[in-house]
Amino acid sequence: MTQLEAARKGEVTPAMERVAAREGLAVEKVLEGVAAGKIVIPANHNHRNLDPTGIGAGLRTKVNANLGTSPQFPDPERELHKLQVALAAGADTVMDLSTGGDLDAVRRLILTHSPVPVGTVPIYQAAVEARERHRSIVAMTADELFEVIERQAADGVDFMTVHCGVTMESVERLKRQGRVTDIVSRGGCFILGWIIHHEEENPLYAQFDRLLDICRRYDVTLSLGDGLRPGALADATDRAQIQELIILGELVDRAREAGVQVMVEGPGHVPLDQVALNVQLQKSLCREAPFYVLGPLVTDVAPGYDHIVAAIGGAVAAMAGADFLCYVTPAEHLGLPTAEDVREGVIAARIAAHAADLVKGVPGAKEWDLAMSRARKRLDWEEQLRLALDPEKARRLRQERNPEGIRECTMCGEFCAMRLVAGFLGLDSKARTC
Amino acid sequence: MTQLEAARKGEVTPAMERVAAREGLAVEKVLEGVAAGKIVIPANHNHRNLDPTGIGAGLRTKVNANLGTSPQFPDPERELHKLQVALAAGADTVMDLSTGGDLDAVRRLILTHSPVPVGTVPIYQAAVEARERHRSIVAMTADELFEVIERQAADGVDFMTVHCGVTMESVERLKRQGRVTDIVSRGGCFILGWIIHHEEENPLYAQFDRLLDICRRYDVTLSLGDGLRPGALADATDRAQIQELIILGELVDRAREAGVQVMVEGPGHVPLDQVALNVQLQKSLCREAPFYVLGPLVTDVAPGYDHIVAAIGGAVAAMAGADFLCYVTPAEHLGLPTAEDVREGVIAARIAAHAADLVKGVPGAKEWDLAMSRARKRLDWEEQLRLALDPEKARRLRQERNPEGIRECTMCGEFCAMRLVAGFLGLDSKARTC
Repeated sequence: MTQLEAARKGEVTPAMERVAAREGLAVEKVLEGVAAGKIVIPANHNHRNLDPTGIGAGLRTKVNANLGTSPQFPDPERELHKLQVALAAGADTVMDLSTGGDLDAVRRLILTHSPVPVGTVPIYQAAVEARERHRSIVAMTADELFEVIERQAADGVDFMTVHCGVTMESVERLKRQGRVTDIVSRGGCFILGWIIHHEEENPLYAQFDRLLDICRRYDVTLSLGDGLRPGALADATDRAQIQELIILGELVDRAREAGVQVMVEGPGHVPLDQVALNVQLQKSLCREAPFYVLGPLVTDVAPGYDHIVAAIGGAVAAMAGADFLCYVTPAEHLGLPTAEDVREGVIAARIAAHAADLVKGVPGAKEWDLAMSRARKRLDWEEQLRLALDPEKARRLRQERNPEGIRECTMCGEFCAMRLVAGFLGLDSKARTC
Repeated sequence: MTQLEAARKGEVTPAMERVAAREGLAVEKVLEGVAAGKIVIPANHNHRNLDPTGIGAGLRTKVNANLGTSPQFPDPERELHKLQVALAAGADTVMDLSTGGDLDAVRRLILTHSPVPVGTVPIYQAAVEARERHRSIVAMTADELFEVIERQAADGVDFMTVHCGVTMESVERLKRQGRVTDIVSRGGCFILGWIIHHEEENPLYAQFDRLLDICRRYDVTLSLGDGLRPGALADATDRAQIQELIILGELVDRAREAGVQVMVEGPGHVPLDQVALNVQLQKSLCREAPFYVLGPLVTDVAPGYDHIVAAIGGAVAAMAGADFLCYVTPAEHLGLPTAEDVREGVIAARIAAHAADLVKGVPGAKEWDLAMSRARKRLDWEEQLRLALDPEKARRLRQERNPEGIRECTMCGEFCAMRLVAGFLGLDSKARTC
């Protein structure tokens, strides 16, 4: 039974209890959210060491970190190290996007070591295997693709990105639209090639019920991918993107009917003034399914800093109702991220998520900031460092920038407003003489 | 004659011509903006090597970098180096906030080497000198304060932050309000102390005409400081802050009447959903005077990453109409920034400014992103690196992450969507076989 099926029967599962406890919510609220499809709990029956997390309305905005080998860097140990770095930095979920080396082995290694939900994009593995078997990605058969999905589900993958909305119809709209960067989604591009090569409908769409059947058996949460997401500001919110979103909305209905948990992925590169609009549109077209955003990136011109670009877009998206932020690292558009890039990407996304949670009424969010501000006012450095989103970096900077034993900091020194004002307002008699 | 006085007479100055050329605008537009007080051109007659820049409506959003010694780090050469780093990173203006060492010498050194407008907060120097002379900041006389202002103006300072809105009335409102962090502005805190100590009105307010007289003679642009800006999310948009803003609005009228260019500073720590509101309120209360925002910081809990926190707030503020972003460095709340912190702070603020300029209709902004996206589609790496906001870092990451001669990048390698889609859509016959 899936979490969704249980919730509809009014059955509280251990996963729902855990999610409620983590979020500081009544378990009934979580159950209602899951039953309505506004919350998903990606928790494959076969992911043994999972500590369940919820994604969706009323919950803390979640952050995903992408891991995975590439043909140039096929080393599983390297990705295991990134997993540990991502978890230490506070990632709520990870995705294994491996395309190099022994893909089954990497995925199983990550699943074994990950207490957080693990997602995949099964068509990556299907594409790699098709090239090995047929020397061509597009020669992949529908059966081969579904076999990979089943294999990954059986291994315990909690959520899967499937580009079901790249259909003959949406591809036609893409061609009519005309775009600066066409398709930048790898999965979307494989499907496009498959459709053109076979002159047949996308099997993930044509055989959607077969996909739902696998997901229901293991309780894999579907993450309906945005294969036609804009890869340039100039392509944002165009007819191709919105056509795909309409199709995804229809598939949300079908997944829910089948008892399968489902969320929807969103753009991409989006100008700042279209970010909230994109969230509202997704919520409307997809009947409030949880929204998983990739960025959004609010400018194209800052390679090396796309974690900051994504933090701007992610904060605005989350404030507007996005539930789940896929991190972007400083290496995006340039190469495979290092472990340090992973850490920076997770922290930047957590800042965006928290900035939004402060205004989304998430329990505990405001209290955290209030405690920090009070510690600042008291010049209580130990408490400030303890409360920091990244305590390690805050401590390092504090130590590097200040002589030992200083009560204020080297920015203001004896002219510290915190200290002086306390004196002026009569709160600290020692400071009065300044 | 000030730029404002010239504009009112319909006289085009060389500074207006330079600003128009830089912005790609007709000089009449700049002249109209200056005449209406919606644009300022901070250009002191005595800043000999200045290359003028405009700040305000219809212009590119500008970025300021703060420099300056502190009592613990009084070395002028260190700050000169930071100036060079800030300029190389693309700062549009700098402020010298020195409080340690020979303050006149540091300021003159920075002015001599800065082609961009230089701002100061004269009360810092007045406070340092008052401690030397009277062993007490608050024992400073009004004449001593105005003497420092005149000295700095004569040296060529282009804009000055003056906390004129910290008055007996606004301090009273502050006390009634009650706050988590009271005052976090150093200048605001000195004025508060002065008012309480002397039981007299803030001389910058009481003798505002004297201040205007100095500014008019040298064409110093006033930057009306936000001494009561919130230093904690919990204090944002409170009665004390808005009372000060009302007073600043009245002073904008008086400055304009006197022919003195004027802009207004804004918060501070502000929750994400109040950022646009704060900009709209300032524009309304201050009759569309250019708005110079400090951040805003959209969470209190990320010391070590406040450049990212400020980029989120700054982008949203600039989209809502803020004209000028004061950078925040990773060291904010922890200590004096290093040169590397300065660089990171400027780049993060420039990203925020540009993300907003893309949706503010600033000439050339969209074209930059479009050129980058086209270079991406062509896998033209040299062009991508050339167009990057920070070409040096983009080039370094590209080189570190990729073997030499690779056509794609190590993120996707042979599964590069850009390359594959070109093949599938028949744009690149070589790629068709994938």
